[in-house]
Amino acid sequence: MIHFSINKAYFLQALNATKRAISSKNAIPILSSLKLEITKSTITLTGSNGQISIENTISIQDENAGLLITQPGGILLEANFFINIVSSLPDVTLDFEEIEHHQVVLRSGKSEITLKGKDIDQYPRLQEVTTTNPLLFETHILKQIISQTAFAASTQESRPILTGVHMTLKNHNAFKAVATDSHRMSQRQIELEKATDDFDVVIPSRSLREFSAVFGENVEQVEVFLSPSQVLFRSEHTSFYTRLLEGNYPDTDRLLTNTFETEVTFNSSALRQSMERAQLISNASQNGTVKLEISNGKVSAHVNSPEVGKVNEEIDAISLSGNDLTISFNPTYLIDALKVLKSETVVIRFISPVRPFTLIPGDDTEDFIQLITPVRTN
Amino acid sequence: MIHFSINKAYFLQALNATKRAISSKNAIPILSSLKLEITKSTITLTGSNGQISIENTISIQDENAGLLITQPGGILLEANFFINIVSSLPDVTLDFEEIEHHQVVLRSGKSEITLKGKDIDQYPRLQEVTTTNPLLFETHILKQIISQTAFAASTQESRPILTGVHMTLKNHNAFKAVATDSHRMSQRQIELEKATDDFDVVIPSRSLREFSAVFGENVEQVEVFLSPSQVLFRSEHTSFYTRLLEGNYPDTDRLLTNTFETEVTFNSSALRQSMERAQLISNASQNGTVKLEISNGKVSAHVNSPEVGKVNEEIDAISLSGNDLTISFNPTYLIDALKVLKSETVVIRFISPVRPFTLIPGDDTEDFIQLITPVRTN
Repeated sequence: MIHFSINKAYFLQALNATKRAISSKNAIPILSSLKLEITKSTITLTGSNGQISIENTISIQDENAGLLITQPGGILLEANFFINIVSSLPDVTLDFEEIEHHQVVLRSGKSEITLKGKDIDQYPRLQEVTTTNPLLFETHILKQIISQTAFAASTQESRPILTGVHMTLKNHNAFKAVATDSHRMSQRQIELEKATDDFDVVIPSRSLREFSAVFGENVEQVEVFLSPSQVLFRSEHTSFYTRLLEGNYPDTDRLLTNTFETEVTFNSSALRQSMERAQLISNASQNGTVKLEISNGKVSAHVNSPEVGKVNEEIDAISLSGNDLTISFNPTYLIDALKVLKSETVVIRFISPVRPFTLIPGDDTEDFIQLITPVRTN
Repeated sequence: MIHFSINKAYFLQALNATKRAISSKNAIPILSSLKLEITKSTITLTGSNGQISIENTISIQDENAGLLITQPGGILLEANFFINIVSSLPDVTLDFEEIEHHQVVLRSGKSEITLKGKDIDQYPRLQEVTTTNPLLFETHILKQIISQTAFAASTQESRPILTGVHMTLKNHNAFKAVATDSHRMSQRQIELEKATDDFDVVIPSRSLREFSAVFGENVEQVEVFLSPSQVLFRSEHTSFYTRLLEGNYPDTDRLLTNTFETEVTFNSSALRQSMERAQLISNASQNGTVKLEISNGKVSAHVNSPEVGKVNEEIDAISLSGNDLTISFNPTYLIDALKVLKSETVVIRFISPVRPFTLIPGDDTEDFIQLITPVRTN
């Protein structure tokens, strides 16, 4: 039966990182548990909500862990409850001992707390990924790619495949991530340095956002492993598994053309603020759109809601070329698109009032393109 | 028709302070409006939810307001919407002009926003307090008294009078604030320097918490004015009105006795942490209590929940005198009581396992006493 002692703060950090995968309202009750597996030299904590699973490993060799393992074993404990108890303990160290009937005694300072646990065999088998031939990513690059695409995925379950981000590798090094909810699209491409096998997967955007929360700034690099149904992101201490979405992702390449009739360069934040004002009024109106008017070398934005009021304003353009044009769209999509642009300026290219328009960063250091579909008005 | 210009940031600060009284879900739809009244030299902003009302005044003499009034008048504007619009404006200054049909045009930089307003006569008449003979309070003292008592008021509407804090003045300078939900009681007394008329009022605890949020550290002193149905707290720029509760407050003096059998002095934060551990387990158990055992010069805490587990721990006492005793109570009440004690130590006095026990600050610099009722267990 398990017996170990550990530094409370270190243990708590690993517990909280694992808890991110655990929902107390899971349809499968046993998944509200945290799984503890103790070997002679490690503790592995596992949490899962059925979609994503997180494993954190603490080793007796980790500095600051103060881990001393007397007896290995395994047990399930109610995650939230156990973590709250650990965090309330008075001393810097805690002693964890299993007694009869899957009970656990926690001792710390003058406090002794006994908790009921469950047999580890009740936990479902979740992960199934072969860890050979990894794809290597710098964590901050992968997080950037996620922030540039995941927001554009659909949140509606009517077409489940669109709730994911389509990630592909071609020619062993051409990586592409695309997301679309059919109103807007965001695509980021990057050349990878180390060649690996080509792949074509759709990862739930919700899992990717969770990935970004789990892997902090201190993790420099992650290994990515793919199986037919799961992907595993792994760092030294943490393994993050997520299920893949099944089905064929629509062909998004056909949406991108090189032709355009009008090109305008804006200051990104000035355009965003203008759209935020437009959004305040358009949100209260029926069709929810802003009208952008490009005419006589000037750009202006207009919203007219008979119920609440109207906006008319001029937006400074840094440069402007091509035909005059009037186009209506949902300002929220443009605000979202500008939020993920780090570039100080943005280049917007229009074809016609009824064709999608594209945004690219003005500094053009990244292969990053976004597309927004206009709304037809009268 | 109204016309003025003002510094946006300054205006926004006053708008946000006024908004605290406004609920967008009010049963009286017109109360989701903000009332603007402009004289030749001031703007007064009024917000209300029917229970509390807040008035903020900006004068042309206020530095940083940059207020220039061309034309006085009055109008109602949808509060949330108007404030969001003002906060989105591009320039440091905004120009506010009323046009026909209670419409308002806001101009700032190259942006022009038109909003629909309402006739000021639609706003109900809310405040009725004569501002003579004020009671003076240092703001931080009044906020302290509120934080020490309001938490102990009832949150249940079954006995509405107990949802308030009972505030009385006797002999022109003996001020007392008491709140109880019938399970615990908290009483703070203070001698006021300047003599005023005696009073006896019950102020809703929710209004008092709102008072503490509205008056910041920068307001040194507030004037308090009483009417039969309302109280007004007033500083230079802000008037805060709240309705009083009607009915007779129970006699709480009879609950306090000077006799006791056991007295223990604890370190406040050590006791609080111990109770927080007890609470984690007791919350999951049926009767929700912790058992405190004073025996042979030692104090220990015990919780036993057959469902989830148990806690046993010794609590260091700084001093202990009197009879041995075992008493059960809801640890949440003791945690709440310790949260509002600023003193490093706390003196707890027990009479018997079935009589309420009292807490006073160990440093005894304030006339502050709390009382907690035990739970009978067999």
